[in-house]
Amino acid sequence: MHRGQLRESGMSENPPSNPWVYRFGNGEAEGSAAMKRLLGGKGANLAEMSRLGLPVPPGFTITTAVCGHYYEYGRRYPNGVSEAVEAALAFIERCVGARFGDPTNPLLVSVRSGAPVSMPGMMDTVLNLGLNDATARGLAEHSGDARFAYDSYRRFLQMFGNVVLGVDHHEFEDILEMYKNDVGARLDTDLAAENWLTVIDRYKAMMGDRLGEPFPQDVNDQLWRSIGAVFGSWRNQRATTYRLLHGIADDLGTAVTVQAMVFGNMGSDCATGVAFTRNPSTGENRLYGEFLINAQGEDVVAGIRTPQPISIEGRQAGDSPLPSMEEAMPEAFAELMRLRERLETHYRDMQDLEFTVQRGRLFMLQTRSGKRTARAALRIAVDMAQSGMITEDEAVLRLDPAALDQLLHPTLDPTAEKHVMARGLPASPGAASGKVAFSADEAEILAGRGEAVILCRVETSPEDIHGMHAARGILTTRGGMTSHAAVVARGMGRACVSGAGELRIDYRSQTMTAAGIQVRAGDIITIDGSSGEVLLGAVPTIQPEMSGDFATVMAWADRTRRMRVRANAETPHDAKTARDFGAEGIGLCRTEHMFFEADRIVAVRRMIMAETEAERRRALAEIEPIQRKDFAELFTIMAGLPVTIRLLDPPLHEFLPSSDEELAQVADASGSEPLKVRQRALRLKESNPMLGHRGCRLGITFPEIYEMQARAIFLAVLDVAECTGQPVIPEIMIPLVGARRELEILKGVIDSVATEISKTREHALHYLVGTMIELPRAALRAEDIAAVADFFSFGTNDLTQTTFGISRDDSSAFLSDYQRAGILPADPFVTLDQKGVGELLSIAVERGRRGRPSLKLGICGEHGGDPDSIAFCDGLTLDYVSCSPFRVPIARLSAAQASLRAATAESE
Amino acid sequence: MHRGQLRESGMSENPPSNPWVYRFGNGEAEGSAAMKRLLGGKGANLAEMSRLGLPVPPGFTITTAVCGHYYEYGRRYPNGVSEAVEAALAFIERCVGARFGDPTNPLLVSVRSGAPVSMPGMMDTVLNLGLNDATARGLAEHSGDARFAYDSYRRFLQMFGNVVLGVDHHEFEDILEMYKNDVGARLDTDLAAENWLTVIDRYKAMMGDRLGEPFPQDVNDQLWRSIGAVFGSWRNQRATTYRLLHGIADDLGTAVTVQAMVFGNMGSDCATGVAFTRNPSTGENRLYGEFLINAQGEDVVAGIRTPQPISIEGRQAGDSPLPSMEEAMPEAFAELMRLRERLETHYRDMQDLEFTVQRGRLFMLQTRSGKRTARAALRIAVDMAQSGMITEDEAVLRLDPAALDQLLHPTLDPTAEKHVMARGLPASPGAASGKVAFSADEAEILAGRGEAVILCRVETSPEDIHGMHAARGILTTRGGMTSHAAVVARGMGRACVSGAGELRIDYRSQTMTAAGIQVRAGDIITIDGSSGEVLLGAVPTIQPEMSGDFATVMAWADRTRRMRVRANAETPHDAKTARDFGAEGIGLCRTEHMFFEADRIVAVRRMIMAETEAERRRALAEIEPIQRKDFAELFTIMAGLPVTIRLLDPPLHEFLPSSDEELAQVADASGSEPLKVRQRALRLKESNPMLGHRGCRLGITFPEIYEMQARAIFLAVLDVAECTGQPVIPEIMIPLVGARRELEILKGVIDSVATEISKTREHALHYLVGTMIELPRAALRAEDIAAVADFFSFGTNDLTQTTFGISRDDSSAFLSDYQRAGILPADPFVTLDQKGVGELLSIAVERGRRGRPSLKLGICGEHGGDPDSIAFCDGLTLDYVSCSPFRVPIARLSAAQASLRAATAESE
Repeated sequence: MHRGQLRESGMSENPPSNPWVYRFGNGEAEGSAAMKRLLGGKGANLAEMSRLGLPVPPGFTITTAVCGHYYEYGRRYPNGVSEAVEAALAFIERCVGARFGDPTNPLLVSVRSGAPVSMPGMMDTVLNLGLNDATARGLAEHSGDARFAYDSYRRFLQMFGNVVLGVDHHEFEDILEMYKNDVGARLDTDLAAENWLTVIDRYKAMMGDRLGEPFPQDVNDQLWRSIGAVFGSWRNQRATTYRLLHGIADDLGTAVTVQAMVFGNMGSDCATGVAFTRNPSTGENRLYGEFLINAQGEDVVAGIRTPQPISIEGRQAGDSPLPSMEEAMPEAFAELMRLRERLETHYRDMQDLEFTVQRGRLFMLQTRSGKRTARAALRIAVDMAQSGMITEDEAVLRLDPAALDQLLHPTLDPTAEKHVMARGLPASPGAASGKVAFSADEAEILAGRGEAVILCRVETSPEDIHGMHAARGILTTRGGMTSHAAVVARGMGRACVSGAGELRIDYRSQTMTAAGIQVRAGDIITIDGSSGEVLLGAVPTIQPEMSGDFATVMAWADRTRRMRVRANAETPHDAKTARDFGAEGIGLCRTEHMFFEADRIVAVRRMIMAETEAERRRALAEIEPIQRKDFAELFTIMAGLPVTIRLLDPPLHEFLPSSDEELAQVADASGSEPLKVRQRALRLKESNPMLGHRGCRLGITFPEIYEMQARAIFLAVLDVAECTGQPVIPEIMIPLVGARRELEILKGVIDSVATEISKTREHALHYLVGTMIELPRAALRAEDIAAVADFFSFGTNDLTQTTFGISRDDSSAFLSDYQRAGILPADPFVTLDQKGVGELLSIAVERGRRGRPSLKLGICGEHGGDPDSIAFCDGLTLDYVSCSPFRVPIARLSAAQASLRAATAESE
Repeated sequence: MHRGQLRESGMSENPPSNPWVYRFGNGEAEGSAAMKRLLGGKGANLAEMSRLGLPVPPGFTITTAVCGHYYEYGRRYPNGVSEAVEAALAFIERCVGARFGDPTNPLLVSVRSGAPVSMPGMMDTVLNLGLNDATARGLAEHSGDARFAYDSYRRFLQMFGNVVLGVDHHEFEDILEMYKNDVGARLDTDLAAENWLTVIDRYKAMMGDRLGEPFPQDVNDQLWRSIGAVFGSWRNQRATTYRLLHGIADDLGTAVTVQAMVFGNMGSDCATGVAFTRNPSTGENRLYGEFLINAQGEDVVAGIRTPQPISIEGRQAGDSPLPSMEEAMPEAFAELMRLRERLETHYRDMQDLEFTVQRGRLFMLQTRSGKRTARAALRIAVDMAQSGMITEDEAVLRLDPAALDQLLHPTLDPTAEKHVMARGLPASPGAASGKVAFSADEAEILAGRGEAVILCRVETSPEDIHGMHAARGILTTRGGMTSHAAVVARGMGRACVSGAGELRIDYRSQTMTAAGIQVRAGDIITIDGSSGEVLLGAVPTIQPEMSGDFATVMAWADRTRRMRVRANAETPHDAKTARDFGAEGIGLCRTEHMFFEADRIVAVRRMIMAETEAERRRALAEIEPIQRKDFAELFTIMAGLPVTIRLLDPPLHEFLPSSDEELAQVADASGSEPLKVRQRALRLKESNPMLGHRGCRLGITFPEIYEMQARAIFLAVLDVAECTGQPVIPEIMIPLVGARRELEILKGVIDSVATEISKTREHALHYLVGTMIELPRAALRAEDIAAVADFFSFGTNDLTQTTFGISRDDSSAFLSDYQRAGILPADPFVTLDQKGVGELLSIAVERGRRGRPSLKLGICGEHGGDPDSIAFCDGLTLDYVSCSPFRVPIARLSAAQASLRAATAESE
């Protein structure tokens, strides 16, 4: 097949004469890259390459509209399709100079699926179609290579037999294996033409046997049955499940592309290969790929032979003993390099290419945007923007914010060997290795000795915080993406795998078992919080890099975004991390997290358990100076930036003493008896702590708690102002408000503390008082509540729990069933449920601003770090999002993308 | 004072010459009964009586508008008030023929508060104003009764000293007690005029001492200070709290009425009394009241002397040794009987009267609608309607639906002696006495022996159901109005006092203690579920009467109401009760309640605990025939009426076995080991069961459960249809739906069971499938959900929990603080929160009907039996309400009232 041949065809029109079939080839095409919806990704790109004059074997694409019709009308084709296919086939014949079914010079074609959205490996493909006993003989003669011809024929029988006729793979493999044994052959390549003829006979006999009819020799019959099989594969189990999992619409349909075969396996001047226009792993601007001489595409994938590097540089880097394409086929390589340039300039993105060299001539079989690692994506976007190929805004839009996580945490070395012991949820990104410890204390002791530790628990509670801090990673067998372990780990930037339900932890024997494998305390494991894998032994990891390209893109993002990004942080360490990651303030300081530190927990427990106000005030008096110091530290670290402090919101049960030791400590500190303390704890126990006596309800019944916290805040404000000379304006946030009057009363408590302090200290105090909107009722009553609130911060974790009536701690029992059944598109605790919770947010924004036009609006739930949710928040015109420190860069990028997309949408 | 004197005054105009002060007296008035908002209840009714020509001492009312001004402008009066008061005082002087401050013939007045809404005893009153050293002497001479004059003076000093000058009561009492000791007097009546003069001197000395100024002798000064004190009392602590508790607006204000004094204590031809135009306890159409000869009003209230019956009949009924007014003062009595007729005809309601007889002449001091028992209200409304005084619709509107409860349950005999041991919440109405039992089993055993039992538990769980059934009443020390005990007791019609926190139950010692009183198992107590009282011993009760007037009013109500009334019931007993009470179907059959019966609980536990589907199906197979029988019984009882069956919605934790015995039973039944069963139970335990793996979530993960229930329902339908020949159309309800797809999937499960059964049994099945709307998300997504639902039923219990983020089981810890602080006007689990939950209902109704115009709408939460909530549901145009069987009559009446009010509002 020569370029000359391709020219002969003379394709007349564009658009096509027939609406169902689009031809390409010979430097022209009826379709283009813009027509993915109709032609599928593969068909559209083949048309585009053809249009660009690239050497593409000619062919045609039967559209997705035909697929739609096929399913709508009981698997029948629209009128005119068969005529159009016939005409298009004649077009290929003219281009190639061979005829379909012609025993002297047969045209062979491939029949491939191609959906508008990539669904790799999900649907079926038939190659070498057009072979039968007669044309195989003709191909042997015409190519002068009988072995090639019969090998092609038996491959076709196998593929057609399996894909179209439904004969199981192993039936073919059994025959082939047995025959190779018989003739003493080890590899397929040991078999000669005659051998393949025998195999072909046995294949045909077996198929005739299984199917009750002989293998179809009519090439048109072969073609139509293959087209039907490809359309049919759109609804096979595999493809349907894949679409469900990836949120791909069922009615998109697939296109079918029929294309002239070219062969990389006709001799040593033939080859087949895949290449990326840049390195998909590092992003380096160099052609990267592999090829095999005298091979068909499937051989590269099958891994039977070791592929050779494409460039000299690649050979040197990989230390390969085999010659590179650059050396073995310099002309074809030079052509590939030219096409690489051409395609990147045209598509303005890194491309993933498939090519074949047939008798020295290069043919392009596929081009598409290449998948890449987060690292490569970053580098490519920056390089392309800096070279002027794309704009900086486009570079910002090119990056997947969720993938940034990979850059911010250690990742498993992809080349390392892995022994997966169990799988859980990817609860907090990053990979970590360390010794197994089954208690927080043990983890702390080991870490104190300088050992890396993985804390393994059935689930964690606030009392494990010190152990979680000490550990490199946390593994739990119970709990979801928003369980205590997951939330705290994300906040701390620790890797975490949660809810690894296959694992059984036995605290008594200090062992952990899954699928017959047992791990003991002190054994080393690795967890990958980005994939949810639990691995045996220490797996090497790659460390993150946050300067360079990362900093460049972040600067571009910051320049374009409208929303501010704050962090949820309460410890000095987290606050510093947040600032380093570019947080523009603290959006949520959860004071109850501060209460778990060892130096105060007993006083906090006494406070919670107090039977009288006097006893409560005594305990609070002990806590106040510690809180004051905490706040002063935070204000100092965040100097110049806003800090939102949420007053105490403990799920009561997290503070109740339970162990004998804890009960004794509390009894001791309060001068009571352990038995009485235990009884009190039992009385305080709640059936549904999430809906219990928490948040501002505690402030209403025990105003002295919020009084103490307000005092600690204001005194810290004065301490820091004195020290630094800079004013601090705290934003005090009241949690779990459901009615205006709650906020009114508690704002009154805060105001009177402020008045008293500014009087005795003779220093004016400036501060804001606002509320979390985390209950459906608060969203509905937002106008009323806004009348007494300086700001709202959406607590979407609790709002999601209450709107759905689902406890995130208990949701793991059914949430996966829900996603499988397509009830929920995503875990609503990870990505904001826009249709339900989102409507409440939108109601609250509108009504809140009606109640107070100057209302400041933000979000501080976990969703504040989720890209889709951030885009939604931008649409709601929130002023800021607040998220875990480690997600701040993700939020910055997401906010920028949201701004850019909004601007585009507006200008359209 | 004679009628002639009253005539002399000559009141010129109506409306008044001055906007701040309204006069009345002498057969005329500037105000009327319609002006309660401006004149207060007292002032408006005095004006009305005066207008009617009734003998009312003349006076004037300073309006509530003056009160508003007084508070708005720093406790100052508007211009013109003092002149108007002066002129109005002159009017009184003219009417009475005496002059204010005149030492020869002094006019005395009373100064009283009167708000638009009755606030009994909350604000202040000053009587006998106008007395000083000189006028007291003058009164002594003019009246010819020195003892009367000085007794009046010392009473004035006491009242003015306390109310206006703020001197504590006991300061006066101490002086009087000491003096009586000195002179050897036992009663006040033992003191003569000279004695009172000494007491007066000592009072004045003490006041001068305390206040640093002499007691004010200027009568105008006295008047203005008293007016100021009455306005001031509007904002005293007592009144403010009262308003908060009764939901009375703070800005209503009080009026002040100044009125000429008349004296019932000027000799044996004088008297004072109170009367009801009908018997307020039974409703009997006879004058009912008490009076005292030679006494002032406060003496009747103080209870120092025993009042005399007003009529001969009353004397005979009460077996009183004292003569009745009818006998002692026949003329005044005849006049009172005439006025009774006049007032009832005028006000068209039973009146509560205050009167004084001064030297043989009757004066009316107050009239207002009289408070009455539910029994009396019913009888009065029916009598008045039947006599044509009011219409039947008015009779329906007159009754307080909530008070009907008193008629449907036994009540404590109001004459019986009561020893209150503790107080809890009035969780389920009715009074019951019985032996204390501390366990359900014990209660059942005692009841089996024919003993009346009160089941006393810290809290109840579904496993106590048999004991609750066996008991006459249930007492718990923990839990609110909607705790398990409360809900189940209301459903069963058992009396219940819940959350009696003062009580400590010790199961081990089988005792119950409060305030030092100990009760043992087997001791007899009485509980009053209408008041929340726990009483020692057996207190006699009065049985309810449901025919006669009750039936009459219910028939009138049924004729007018738009909404249907159904009942929440699942046992045959409850269903029968519901039908007897007039329920028009079952709106909620909670199948999980059926699961707790002893004959199935082990199988249910096995089902819940099953590790595999096979094991679960084995357990379900055991339950199916029992369920089928249950449903068949219900359908038979409710023949011809709709029955809504909610598929299983267990809070998981209520089913988990916990005791060793339960664990052993389950292990035994499933062939497992207790230890394994315990571990499984631990794994299934949820942190927030209310938000856990329940409702349709269970149906999604284990469709075989709903399959079994659907099969049981349809087979029961066929069983009953076969038996009775009548078709049954069940309404199958899916609980806890939050997304359309959940309902779609589960409707699919039901439909395929129906298809299968109607095929094998060759019998068409008609049924509806609908859903509970009990999650905020369901309300928001109602349009989408309605597309696959035949009906919605609002589950407002859970919707309230999720909208507020409050667990009703845990709310008792703070809900009372919330009501005290005015955050919530009412317990939102009792009366629907219209502003929050109500908005979600209204959204769901609108969107639901948009999604399916024929959508049937009802409510089945506890609110379905609450009058205010029922009125709200009528406004939402729901088709029916469903409530506990014992609340069905209340709902019927409430629905009728809502229809009538809506019709009135429309015609206005």
